[in-house]
Amino acid sequence: MFDIHEIRSQFSILNQEVNGKPLVYLDNAATSQKPNSVLEAYNRYYTEINANVHRGIHTLSQLATEEMELSRRKIQKFINAEHDFEVIFTKGTTEGINLISYILTSELKKDDEIIISYLEHHSNIVPWQMLCERTGAKLRVIPMDENGVLQLEYLDEFLSEKTKVVSLNQVSNALGVVNPISEITAKTRAASDAYIIIDGAQSAPHFKIDVQTLDCDFFVFSGHKMYAPMGTGVLYGKREILEKLPPFQGGGEMIATCSFDRTTYAGLPFKYEAGTPNVGGNIALGAAVDFIERVGHENIQNHENALLEYAQRQLLEIEGLKIYGEKANRTGVVSFNLEGIGISSDVGMILDKMGVAVRTGHHCTQPIMDFFDIAGTVRASFAVYNTFNEIDILVEGVKKAKRMLA
Amino acid sequence: MFDIHEIRSQFSILNQEVNGKPLVYLDNAATSQKPNSVLEAYNRYYTEINANVHRGIHTLSQLATEEMELSRRKIQKFINAEHDFEVIFTKGTTEGINLISYILTSELKKDDEIIISYLEHHSNIVPWQMLCERTGAKLRVIPMDENGVLQLEYLDEFLSEKTKVVSLNQVSNALGVVNPISEITAKTRAASDAYIIIDGAQSAPHFKIDVQTLDCDFFVFSGHKMYAPMGTGVLYGKREILEKLPPFQGGGEMIATCSFDRTTYAGLPFKYEAGTPNVGGNIALGAAVDFIERVGHENIQNHENALLEYAQRQLLEIEGLKIYGEKANRTGVVSFNLEGIGISSDVGMILDKMGVAVRTGHHCTQPIMDFFDIAGTVRASFAVYNTFNEIDILVEGVKKAKRMLA
Repeated sequence: MFDIHEIRSQFSILNQEVNGKPLVYLDNAATSQKPNSVLEAYNRYYTEINANVHRGIHTLSQLATEEMELSRRKIQKFINAEHDFEVIFTKGTTEGINLISYILTSELKKDDEIIISYLEHHSNIVPWQMLCERTGAKLRVIPMDENGVLQLEYLDEFLSEKTKVVSLNQVSNALGVVNPISEITAKTRAASDAYIIIDGAQSAPHFKIDVQTLDCDFFVFSGHKMYAPMGTGVLYGKREILEKLPPFQGGGEMIATCSFDRTTYAGLPFKYEAGTPNVGGNIALGAAVDFIERVGHENIQNHENALLEYAQRQLLEIEGLKIYGEKANRTGVVSFNLEGIGISSDVGMILDKMGVAVRTGHHCTQPIMDFFDIAGTVRASFAVYNTFNEIDILVEGVKKAKRMLA
Repeated sequence: MFDIHEIRSQFSILNQEVNGKPLVYLDNAATSQKPNSVLEAYNRYYTEINANVHRGIHTLSQLATEEMELSRRKIQKFINAEHDFEVIFTKGTTEGINLISYILTSELKKDDEIIISYLEHHSNIVPWQMLCERTGAKLRVIPMDENGVLQLEYLDEFLSEKTKVVSLNQVSNALGVVNPISEITAKTRAASDAYIIIDGAQSAPHFKIDVQTLDCDFFVFSGHKMYAPMGTGVLYGKREILEKLPPFQGGGEMIATCSFDRTTYAGLPFKYEAGTPNVGGNIALGAAVDFIERVGHENIQNHENALLEYAQRQLLEIEGLKIYGEKANRTGVVSFNLEGIGISSDVGMILDKMGVAVRTGHHCTQPIMDFFDIAGTVRASFAVYNTFNEIDILVEGVKKAKRMLA
């Protein structure tokens, strides 16, 4: 049974006032709050077993290693990876994508092509621009339509033997649009040998991920958007690809043997985990996976979709309010502007005075803003602990902002 | 006044038994334990103000940003950097060195030279080997003598206009040897335009750092070895150098403007902080700086040096025990083997049964092990909370190991 009160009771931070009003936290696409079980797992690590991992034979080091590797196996199951060593711990999605873009450097040459889309976050644009600079490869960008839906006929047109990388998000952070990844991977496999990279930062918190069904080569996501601490994240890569490609960073953990003449690298997953890992954070990420599975993927998705539908219906009753991507298949996000009010942050500030936390601005997706010819949007984004009553407060706040700014 | 009991009372984890004996934690060079004030700062962040930073206008986001930037200024003071924006948050020393080695790629060409030393951790060897592979530059390695002291006449010999990088640790993690950094930077400045990089992973926890007096271009260190959580660290770089060099990773935070044709980068420090930072961890790192300054640099150094001296004197009374780097200027570490007992981990396992946590093996410094023609050492490493009584237990344990393994 899905009990929203029980769920909210697990998030101490929600039980506070901001500007004299109960906090309504609707900035979950930027970062989610953390349940007590995650914070307790983190704290327990540091008050009971903190030690550096893998190379230590003393008891604390062995316990820390076991706990972190247990967390890796939880994540393996969470995304249905075939092997636990296909799960690489990172500090977040941005590091994951940059890591991939660096290790692919020698795989690309001049005039090869990288396909991304108009819907991408800057972190899935700029690393590829930098890779193009290093290699002379070219960026091709799948356009979207007025609803924020990718025009996949352009993918068909772009795909060729020159295509070496296709990198897309599963869910747009700015609009919440869900992209048809299985269709995209099928098209890509049929027409090229490109590496397929999925940015799952905005999907992993919301629905069940199955990397084998998606048939992607890489899948990256952040811990902090799915109830885990900041500074945690995951890069999934297919075994044979991770084994073939070179390492990213050099250092401890990732070395098999080291001399000044010759260094050999350790096997997976260590090859890609140079330096002391964020052991406490990685264990807490495992606790976040436990939290999600305890609540249930279906419960989360049903609740969040109901919130989205309710919010959309109420907001559209406000005259002159435009929702970007209104008619697209979406999850977790409603992104909008009020007619005649060009500066989304003005709306955000009025909402903040009412205790409502939303994000305003370009959401690190300037191309989407350019497409709609706007400076930014007001974005309300949902997590499992949000309520219909909170949506009512949001809507009331938007109406008030409209009155004040008109 | 330095009150060891008061200090120990701040570390809950120390108050436990391991294998039925009181925990004696002497693996601080791998990672230190964290005082309650650091864990509380972390927990307070997540239970009161957690939000994504910099781009948010709502109250939590502003509070989170203020707290993280306050932490940056604490670290600025901690290392005496001229500007707060010269402090870049990383996930640790290894990432710091790799970041530098990547952004220097276009600064080096074939037959340029990179100077490191025999005393380096793998994380200050392998990134430079990888840079050599990318550019055709050559690695030159300052040898050490039987005491683990660098033979600086080789630095004189190596330095030339071809020298583009000099990267050395301030304190060796395997032996605890303190290198004469000011002398090294002076020599380097006199003979070349090389970038000078100091690996401070093992010095920042132990004595006062002054990057301006050291006159280095970069200084990197980890949070987790100086009482802060894992997944935190700092890269200091001189303003004009950080402004000149290209970014490392692309993504959110580090963008000024982004379009598919042209992307421009943000100013310092954001240019080098792509992706959501580890806000809670970075704030906790500030709390760790507070802890160190509350105890006092001088108190820490005096206490740790007394522990080292005491341990060394007691251990040398054991017949056949050899301390590596015995006669060198050292801090925080005593690294040793028992004659006739080739496998350091056997000693480590017996110590663990007595509750004593030490590290055994090559400590990610295989070249040092090759130099001494050994597979590894037993390394006891100290923090401010260690006691003379704990050294007695260590020494007793080593004697027992000698009897059992003889």
